[in-house]
Amino acid sequence: MKCLIPNIGSTSFKYRVLDMPSETVLAQGRVERIGQPGGECADYPAAIRKCLDEIAGPGRALSSLSEIGAVGFKAVHAGPLNAPQIIGDEFLAAMDEICFLAPAHNPPYIAAINAFRQELPGVPLVAVIETSPYRHMDEASTTYAVPYEWRSEYGMRRYGFHGASHRSASERTRELLGRNDIRHISCHLGGSSSVAAFRNGVAIDTSFGASPQSGLPQNNRVGDIDVFAVLHMMKKLGLNPDQMADLLGCRSGLAGISGKSGDVRDLTEAAAKGDSRSQLALDVFVYAIRHYVGAFMLELGGIDAITFSGGIGENSAEIRAAVLRDLSGFGVEIDADKNATIKGEGAISTDRSTVRVLVVPANEEIVVARETVAVVDRANAAAQTLAEQTR
Amino acid sequence: MKCLIPNIGSTSFKYRVLDMPSETVLAQGRVERIGQPGGECADYPAAIRKCLDEIAGPGRALSSLSEIGAVGFKAVHAGPLNAPQIIGDEFLAAMDEICFLAPAHNPPYIAAINAFRQELPGVPLVAVIETSPYRHMDEASTTYAVPYEWRSEYGMRRYGFHGASHRSASERTRELLGRNDIRHISCHLGGSSSVAAFRNGVAIDTSFGASPQSGLPQNNRVGDIDVFAVLHMMKKLGLNPDQMADLLGCRSGLAGISGKSGDVRDLTEAAAKGDSRSQLALDVFVYAIRHYVGAFMLELGGIDAITFSGGIGENSAEIRAAVLRDLSGFGVEIDADKNATIKGEGAISTDRSTVRVLVVPANEEIVVARETVAVVDRANAAAQTLAEQTR
Repeated sequence: MKCLIPNIGSTSFKYRVLDMPSETVLAQGRVERIGQPGGECADYPAAIRKCLDEIAGPGRALSSLSEIGAVGFKAVHAGPLNAPQIIGDEFLAAMDEICFLAPAHNPPYIAAINAFRQELPGVPLVAVIETSPYRHMDEASTTYAVPYEWRSEYGMRRYGFHGASHRSASERTRELLGRNDIRHISCHLGGSSSVAAFRNGVAIDTSFGASPQSGLPQNNRVGDIDVFAVLHMMKKLGLNPDQMADLLGCRSGLAGISGKSGDVRDLTEAAAKGDSRSQLALDVFVYAIRHYVGAFMLELGGIDAITFSGGIGENSAEIRAAVLRDLSGFGVEIDADKNATIKGEGAISTDRSTVRVLVVPANEEIVVARETVAVVDRANAAAQTLAEQTR
Repeated sequence: MKCLIPNIGSTSFKYRVLDMPSETVLAQGRVERIGQPGGECADYPAAIRKCLDEIAGPGRALSSLSEIGAVGFKAVHAGPLNAPQIIGDEFLAAMDEICFLAPAHNPPYIAAINAFRQELPGVPLVAVIETSPYRHMDEASTTYAVPYEWRSEYGMRRYGFHGASHRSASERTRELLGRNDIRHISCHLGGSSSVAAFRNGVAIDTSFGASPQSGLPQNNRVGDIDVFAVLHMMKKLGLNPDQMADLLGCRSGLAGISGKSGDVRDLTEAAAKGDSRSQLALDVFVYAIRHYVGAFMLELGGIDAITFSGGIGENSAEIRAAVLRDLSGFGVEIDADKNATIKGEGAISTDRSTVRVLVVPANEEIVVARETVAVVDRANAAAQTLAEQTR
């Protein structure tokens, strides 16, 4: 089956076409600055038409769009609908209903999904929802201490995100260690960041809560905060929930602390030149990562592997070193040379380290494509069973 | 010096009179249900007059109220004024300013302090503020990822509370272990609950944030939660910040989850009878405690001692066992018999356990009294220096 895997950013659109199960990349491309001044496409429908034009036709990867067997979306949030599934009206309504919790993510995904519905009628669109690996977490680790109806009636609970990246890291780590029975902490650090804990390949915890604005501080999004500080500031600043959500979702995070940039590269450079608030932003980021690594280490009863993925996780030796400092008591020993020089996948722990520390570039498209094929296969099998029963 | 140490609850008033530095208890008493139907006192001034009548006079502990050298208050929150100090107008104004963050604690303390000002003019009133042990925590561990002005202009940062209880546990644990260089995690579990981390007697972290409604879930107060879930619910339920603060501060916590009670004794009993939401509330509580114990264990680089204080910490063998389950990989080994039968102070770890696990009943009054004397002594010394310089 040929799968088209779009990756929807707030103003960007990337895609890959994969042949499954061989996982060969047949085509890939990207459109940047959608709807921005100077951008090449005015909106998502235009960007998607451009992509489909690039994929199919004479001399292209596919002879015709009819070769596409499924489109797999790394959709972010559909509340309680957190199993991978074929996207129908109910699923889109669930995404729409919970837009407030994922304001940077859900609206562009909904726009993109609707555009694909128009352009590729009859092709199954599959949501490999970013919350899906966490759907087996137990109730105690996903329940907030609020009236229970918040969970049962309004779906307010911890969900977790970055499912594709963390699953990819989990699968790759088990391959590299040659065994499945591992206690693994996965750090996805990038444009947005989170930590997840896996026992034997099963996600048991995540730093993310109900929304992708929780857990670690992000580029310009808040992360964990005492809600009473926020309610206090709503009164002080005279902000309503939408205005406060905008402040916490667009003008906070590392950018809020530094007052300059939320990009770890900029912050590292400014801190090296003596900018104390840039250094503070980096320190807050590292403190939060270590907080979750510690919490998950206890929950797992120890660690066999720690991995780093994402733009920061793969490229910032400084952040990795800071996250892992002084952990020899827990069996973590870093090879400073390897950490400083690694490019791409590999170990940065010493041979003596009982905890394997790895850089594992995320391979989210493969995870999404595999799950997409599985969802379509299950749907086809179910349809066939139904057809046989009603024949 | 004879110190009066009041302990102000939302509807109760307890006190001890201590002779310092001998720490002899000269008198103690309590008034319950202040301002409640059937209560013996209509308000704090009445309760305080009753207490002062009991303390001094013929046949009482003190011959006259003039023997009282200082009154030491375990005040909860005065924002950035987080050093122990003599209470003046500025301090009271700071407590008043931040009432929104400590709505259950600050108003009764302000009322009580004002009543003592009336009743004992000329006697130094000292605030041993509950935030004080955390005032040396570094900026990275107390800064939220919001615009920096929230901290610098509005005082919104992590503060920490339960200072007297955790300090008491820290001092006692160092005495019991016979050394100061210990990595210690203190669990105060009771009507309200928190976890604090001490390195060599210095607090380096706390589960509490800007307000005493953060960190662990409390009896009926929320603890940590994704702020976007709260903003979402403000819109859904049409609540303003005050209404939401009331919901999160009075109708949430373990009581919110269970729908019945927030008292761990009630929940344990109901769970034993098969009530699943009572069990869930207990599980959420334990999950949150373990979360912070793990985070602090990593931060400390290992643990030498874990202590339990407070009504739950001292009396619930079930909660202690649940918090400490499966920690043998970190050197924690519990003696089940000791844990089940301990009364008062003592160890519940085995002799082989590399981590000493202790039950340490909180002795907050002593900590407050010692600090009160120190504040008064420093103030007297400063006054004398000033007098000499201006002679």
